Amino acid sequence: MDTRQVVLGVDIGGTNTKFGLVDRQGRCLAAASIGTESHHPAERFFGRLQEASRQLLGSLAGDRVLAGIGIGAANANFYKGTIEHPPNLDWDYVDIRAEVRKLSPVPVAVTNDANAAALGEMLFGAAQGMSDFIVITLGTGLGSGIVANGELVYGADGFAGEIGHTTVFPDGRLCGCGRRGCLETYASATGLCRTVHELFCNTNTPSELRGVSFEKMTSKMVYESALREDPIALEAFSVTGRILGMKLADSVAYLSPEAIIVSGGLAAAGDLILEPTRRSLEQHVFPIFRGKTRLLATRLAGGNPAVLGAGALIWNVLEKGPKTPGTGRGAGPDFPGSPEAAPRPDAL
Amino acid sequence: MDTRQVVLGVDIGGTNTKFGLVDRQGRCLAAASIGTESHHPAERFFGRLQEASRQLLGSLAGDRVLAGIGIGAANANFYKGTIEHPPNLDWDYVDIRAEVRKLSPVPVAVTNDANAAALGEMLFGAAQGMSDFIVITLGTGLGSGIVANGELVYGADGFAGEIGHTTVFPDGRLCGCGRRGCLETYASATGLCRTVHELFCNTNTPSELRGVSFEKMTSKMVYESALREDPIALEAFSVTGRILGMKLADSVAYLSPEAIIVSGGLAAAGDLILEPTRRSLEQHVFPIFRGKTRLLATRLAGGNPAVLGAGALIWNVLEKGPKTPGTGRGAGPDFPGSPEAAPRPDAL
Repeated sequence: MDTRQVVLGVDIGGTNTKFGLVDRQGRCLAAASIGTESHHPAERFFGRLQEASRQLLGSLAGDRVLAGIGIGAANANFYKGTIEHPPNLDWDYVDIRAEVRKLSPVPVAVTNDANAAALGEMLFGAAQGMSDFIVITLGTGLGSGIVANGELVYGADGFAGEIGHTTVFPDGRLCGCGRRGCLETYASATGLCRTVHELFCNTNTPSELRGVSFEKMTSKMVYESALREDPIALEAFSVTGRILGMKLADSVAYLSPEAIIVSGGLAAAGDLILEPTRRSLEQHVFPIFRGKTRLLATRLAGGNPAVLGAGALIWNVLEKGPKTPGTGRGAGPDFPGSPEAAPRPDAL
Repeated sequence: MDTRQVVLGVDIGGTNTKFGLVDRQGRCLAAASIGTESHHPAERFFGRLQEASRQLLGSLAGDRVLAGIGIGAANANFYKGTIEHPPNLDWDYVDIRAEVRKLSPVPVAVTNDANAAALGEMLFGAAQGMSDFIVITLGTGLGSGIVANGELVYGADGFAGEIGHTTVFPDGRLCGCGRRGCLETYASATGLCRTVHELFCNTNTPSELRGVSFEKMTSKMVYESALREDPIALEAFSVTGRILGMKLADSVAYLSPEAIIVSGGLAAAGDLILEPTRRSLEQHVFPIFRGKTRLLATRLAGGNPAVLGAGALIWNVLEKGPKTPGTGRGAGPDFPGSPEAAPRPDAL
C-alpha cells in the first residue's frame, strides 16, 4: 500500500458537517467543518465541501494522495449511495455518490452514522480484531451498527441495524417514528429526559431538576445533577441502564457478539450509564451467554469518532474491494478509478 | 464436482435420530432412523449410527461416494463440534466431532437444528439465492437461524440465533430457561397451548377445548379445533401470530432480511399462524422496512427438513472450505481428509 494515501472522512450532521483526512492507522491528520445548510440544494453543499477539503489536503505536509471518500449521514444507504428522508436535513433524497462523482474520481462509500461508527471501532477502536460485535450510539436517538462474521450487516435493503427501533414495552412511549415503546424512547439523551419526567410524576423524590421545563431539559443537565448526587438524576440513569441492558440481552440472543461498544454523547456519562446497563444485561441474558459479552466504552472518543468512522468505511471498502455485500441489491460503492489512480491533492 | 458424491445428514432428536443421504441437489436419496437412546453412552450411539448409515449407503444404486457428514442437534456448537447441556438428551457434553472421527475419516460439521434448517432453506428451499434471511422453527420451542451477507451467523461463541429467548413482555411468562417473557413461551407449540389457557381464564368464550387438561393439551388439538372454527382455538392462533409478528418486527430492525421463513411443526398450521403474523409484522415494523420483508413457509416441508438441513450444513462447508466463520474461536469443522479422498461406502 502507498503510505502516502489518506482518505477523506465526512460526517454530515443536521447543523454542521465535520470532515477530516484519515490515514490507514486511524490518525486524523487534519480536520475542519462547514455548515451543512441543507436549506440550500445539496449540489451547493458538495461544492463547498470540495473547496474546503482541497484546502485541507493542501495543508498537509508530504506528498499525500487521496485514496477515497467515506461519508456518514443519517438514513444513508450503503448499497444505493443515497440519503433518503433524513430526519435532520431539509434534503429529502440525495444521490450522494452521483454528487461526489461530479467533483472527484476517487472511490466513494456512504453509510449511516452508526454503521460508520462500527467500522471505526473495528479498524481503529475498541473492536480491533473482533469479527462479531455491535456498536450502540447513544445520542438524540439510539443508532446501531452490527458486525457479524467480520462484515457489517447491511441487510437486504442497506438499512439493517435499527436496534433503536425494537420494542421494549408494547404500548410504551410514542416514538418519532410513529411506533410505540421503541428502545430509543428510553435509552438515548431524549429518553433519559423523558425518564426524569416520568420519575417526577411517579415519585415524590426531591430534585433540583423539578424546576426545569420539559422543553429546556437536556441530558447534560441530568448528567451534571447526577454528579451532584441528585436522586432523581441518579435514578434516571439507573432506569435507563436497566432498560438498555434488558434489550441488549436480546441483542446477545440474536448475535452473540464478543462485545457491545457504547458510543455517542450519552456514553460520555461513563459508568453512570454503563454500570447499570452491564448489570441488567447480565441479569437478563439467556443463560448460555452469561459472562460472555463485554460491554465497552468507545475508544474513539478522544478523536473525532464520526470522521474516523467515515474514514474507516472507505478504508474498509478499498481493502475488501468494490463487491457489494449481499447479492443483487444495487451497485455498491463506486469505483470510478482504482485507488492507485487516485488524484493528487488538487483533484478534489 | 464428483456427481457420485452424497453427504450424510443426521438429525439427533430426543427420542429418535433421523439420517439420510443427500445429494448436492438436495434430494434425500435414502433415509432411516434409529432410537437415540441417550441413557446409553454417546459412543454406543455413534457405533449404531455408523452401522445403520453403512447399510443405507450400500442400499444406493450407483457407485456413490460419501463426501461428508452434517449433524444437527439441540445446543450443538459449530465451532467446537460439541453438544453442550442439550435440553432433550441425557448426555451432558459430547464431542461429536471426536466421536465421528473415531469411525470415519470424512469431514464432519455440527450445528444446532435451527441453523441447519436455515442452511437447508438456503441451499435447497425457500431461501435459494438470498443472502440475508432468517429461519424460525416453531416446535416445542422457537429456534432460529440467521443468515447475513450470505453467511450463517454463529456469533463469538457459536450459539448465536436464539430469537426464541428474546423478551416480549418483561415479567411475562416463565420460560424453561429461567427468564421471563421469552418469545418461545408465546410463539411455539407449547406457547399456543398456554395462550389457550390464558384465554380460558380471561374470557367466557365457549370452547370444545375447555374439557382438556393443561397437561393433555397439544398444539395439534388446538389446530384441529381451529379447523372446526372453535373460537378460543382461532383466537389463540391469532394472539400467537400477533405476538410473533410484533417480535419479528424487531428481527427486521436488526437484520433487514429479504425474507423470514417459518418452519417446524406449528408451521404446518399454514395461514392460521402465518396470516396474523404477517399482519402484525407489517403493523409493527419500523416504517422504512414496511412491505419489504416476506414471510414465507418452509419449502422443505415435503421432504425431511432436518435431514436436508444437516446435509446442507456439510455441503456448505465442503464448498466454502474449512475456514472457521469468525476468528479464533475454535477449530471449525474437521477436515481430516479432503472430499476427494473420501472413503467408499464400506468405510463408514
